[in-house]
Amino acid sequence: MTARDLKELSQADALRLLAGTPLGRIVFTRHALPAVRPVNHIVVDGHIVIRSNPGTVISAEVAPAGAVVAFEADELDVAERLGWSVIVTGVARLVEDPEEAALYRERLTPWVAGEMDQVIRIRPEMVTGFELVPAAS
Amino acid sequence: MTARDLKELSQADALRLLAGTPLGRIVFTRHALPAVRPVNHIVVDGHIVIRSNPGTVISAEVAPAGAVVAFEADELDVAERLGWSVIVTGVARLVEDPEEAALYRERLTPWVAGEMDQVIRIRPEMVTGFELVPAAS
Repeated sequence: MTARDLKELSQADALRLLAGTPLGRIVFTRHALPAVRPVNHIVVDGHIVIRSNPGTVISAEVAPAGAVVAFEADELDVAERLGWSVIVTGVARLVEDPEEAALYRERLTPWVAGEMDQVIRIRPEMVTGFELVPAAS
Repeated sequence: MTARDLKELSQADALRLLAGTPLGRIVFTRHALPAVRPVNHIVVDGHIVIRSNPGTVISAEVAPAGAVVAFEADELDVAERLGWSVIVTGVARLVEDPEEAALYRERLTPWVAGEMDQVIRIRPEMVTGFELVPAAS
């Protein structure tokens, strides 16, 4: 299998790819330790929007504190070793306005059953991404 | 689309699934901020092994410090909304013994071209995982 080169994506391409995939992983710090959870998302006006159960660490600790999180999504073909990965870093906040939260809830159905009423929005501060491309010989 | 329930995986099942997939994401803290990178891996004797370029943050800062990292892998079917995710937390360290590092390098080919000679081993301290299953009605 030929090795691949990493080709940097523009910020616009990275956000477009992120918006085109329904699933990512939110990365945060808890008790000074790194933590990660897969979650389905949408991108609205350049912000990442997710839903969460009020009992989770993300709803109860991360978003209320306005903590910095990372959000990663990728589509990587294991057989071909081609694809892309996008990483966004930004502040996560609970959407407190009831009407705004209701609008997001209409557009974003959680995959997981149960009370997933909390809406969290991540404002990207830094967007990076790469594509795996055939290596220059 | 029916919502899914989360079914917790046993530690043994979680490690078996992690060993059966070639690709994960290493999650670490840099300057107190969460960071994440996709990387291909193998599991050897219950440890996660990855390769890295000496110039990266993981090789130059995270592993030399023996920092705690998380490692996430998943296989989630976007159409069916079924699949699994595994999250391991543990200490990352450079494999300093040249013979041991050479053995790992024989078994693990990096996807990315270039100098990927550094071998890093993560010793799992905490292993969690879940499966998405059809929700109980």
